[in-house]
Amino acid sequence: MTPTISQKQILEALARVNDPELHRSLTDLNMVRKVEIKEGVVEITLAITVPNCPFKSQIESDVRTAVGTLPGVNEVIVHMGAMNDEERKALMGTSEEGTAAKYNHIQRVVAVMSGKGGVGKSFVTGLLAAGLTRNGHRVGILDADITGPSIPMLFGLQGPVEPGPVGIRPFLSRTGIKVISMNFLLADEDQPVIWRGPLIGKAITQLWGDVMWGDLDYLLVDLPPGTSDAALSTMQSLPVKGILMVTTPQGLAAMIVRKAVHMAQAVGVPILGVVENMAYFVCPDTSKRHFIFGPSHVDGVAMTAAAPLLAQLPIDPGISALCDAGKIEEVNLPEIPRLLEAFARAIPVQTERKI
Amino acid sequence: MTPTISQKQILEALARVNDPELHRSLTDLNMVRKVEIKEGVVEITLAITVPNCPFKSQIESDVRTAVGTLPGVNEVIVHMGAMNDEERKALMGTSEEGTAAKYNHIQRVVAVMSGKGGVGKSFVTGLLAAGLTRNGHRVGILDADITGPSIPMLFGLQGPVEPGPVGIRPFLSRTGIKVISMNFLLADEDQPVIWRGPLIGKAITQLWGDVMWGDLDYLLVDLPPGTSDAALSTMQSLPVKGILMVTTPQGLAAMIVRKAVHMAQAVGVPILGVVENMAYFVCPDTSKRHFIFGPSHVDGVAMTAAAPLLAQLPIDPGISALCDAGKIEEVNLPEIPRLLEAFARAIPVQTERKI
Repeated sequence: MTPTISQKQILEALARVNDPELHRSLTDLNMVRKVEIKEGVVEITLAITVPNCPFKSQIESDVRTAVGTLPGVNEVIVHMGAMNDEERKALMGTSEEGTAAKYNHIQRVVAVMSGKGGVGKSFVTGLLAAGLTRNGHRVGILDADITGPSIPMLFGLQGPVEPGPVGIRPFLSRTGIKVISMNFLLADEDQPVIWRGPLIGKAITQLWGDVMWGDLDYLLVDLPPGTSDAALSTMQSLPVKGILMVTTPQGLAAMIVRKAVHMAQAVGVPILGVVENMAYFVCPDTSKRHFIFGPSHVDGVAMTAAAPLLAQLPIDPGISALCDAGKIEEVNLPEIPRLLEAFARAIPVQTERKI
Repeated sequence: MTPTISQKQILEALARVNDPELHRSLTDLNMVRKVEIKEGVVEITLAITVPNCPFKSQIESDVRTAVGTLPGVNEVIVHMGAMNDEERKALMGTSEEGTAAKYNHIQRVVAVMSGKGGVGKSFVTGLLAAGLTRNGHRVGILDADITGPSIPMLFGLQGPVEPGPVGIRPFLSRTGIKVISMNFLLADEDQPVIWRGPLIGKAITQLWGDVMWGDLDYLLVDLPPGTSDAALSTMQSLPVKGILMVTTPQGLAAMIVRKAVHMAQAVGVPILGVVENMAYFVCPDTSKRHFIFGPSHVDGVAMTAAAPLLAQLPIDPGISALCDAGKIEEVNLPEIPRLLEAFARAIPVQTERKI
């Protein structure tokens, strides 16, 4: 005699199927609308968040597997509908942090800072994100430079972003890094964002809370130059675990980076390490190193920051070309493995889940 | 018979003596307190703005000359006192623009902008100021980068500034450029300015209106990266005649500089020209030019800006060293004369006096 299957058993099975984006079960998300059982044939009606959800077929297949393997089930028929506006709003709730925030699980938020412009904050952010991803971590980049974003071009990404069920869906880079930038919200990447500070701060907290980051091991926040709104809002509104400070050899840069170091100390965010960029240029004809920005002042910066020097990166025309072509993930420098090791040593190991 | 001299004649002579800083006559400034005449001996009591005024002896000597050369004057005795707080306040008035603004005569305000950080805005500002000064112009630099000021180090200047009679007195560089920077108002140059945008904007309008710029042919405003508060406040609150746009060869820089170009166009400030910095590096061993930041994108920027390319400047370790040593005025590049000529062609020739 074949066992009979109950509605309760089916709902229990559906409670084990997660929405791939929201990381919550279909029952928790109130997506199960009808379950009918007739002689081993189970007919399930689901309401997913949006009709064109890119995970539609994955959800359907997960449901088939979860229910179809139950004893007593001969066939599974899945009807996929979509929620209406009210249902979707109820799902999003009214979190103060942002609509997507409660579905995100981000283990470590690290800000990449300098104070000084043009030292290569975005370059270091991109290298680090690519390296961490190659090492198997789940990585996101929040480009907090609202008026002068470099991240989109480094990764060859262009807007506009698509709205997801509970917020903005970040872009996926070629190697799988989740990326969001103000540029993705503009009609044209050349369009300026002529905003005063309070709006800049608000934009950053929205790129944090209204973006469907999902599960991440690392979220790297690429800060703009300065110690004003962007840096303040990031350090005050985001759970930043630590700061990576980027500088160049020039004494001029060192002076301004020390301001950023003192800001981080004033706000109480630990500095994990210092990276020196544009340290030297190797002449392709003579293989000689030219210290074209003068002798390094990085030791003084590291001392002020009371943080280790993680890497000294060269200037290389080939790298500039890759960056301009949106291929930072293909940059190959012998310094990168050492940077990654030093970064892993520098970041606190405790894992705190933000739910 | 010797002619007798009247009090009226002496006051008329004093009306022709200007305070060297405030560019107004001693009578207008209410500095003449007493005039006594006894048998050809004239005794004048003045109240200058502050007791330790550096122009005290110059004023005294100017008064001696103006009065002593009058027929009927045998001797001039000058008593120099100082105004009290109320008198000084009355002198400063309550100008909305700032206390010093009404004594400043600035012919042309030019903003140096980029959008992108670290492209050399301050370097170009410094080179241009030094060149214009060598050519006999009276030049000032307003460092509008409140959180990341580079100008003080380039010129080897350190605070604190001294208060003058009607505002802050700018520093004089070695070659006579009047310079003001937020760093001069800080106890320590490493101290960060952790301010949100509205304060940044206010600081810039104060560095404009509360600084005793005096007579200037050019005031160069060195803007920070971005298209937020500093750029907005400068373009909206200062009588900016035009903008010099600085970029580097990288496509990444070009994209962000185009945002700044579009901002200038949106706000209606003309772009006078484009300068490309860090265009190439000449290997000292082979004399070969290395385009270490990749091929130039400056033509596209100039086209978007509808403005001429004024100069392409190289990277040079010797120049970096001079800049770090505060000796930007000693930088000697063959491109500078051409830059100055092109700048002179680009800036509108009409002279408008702001009184």
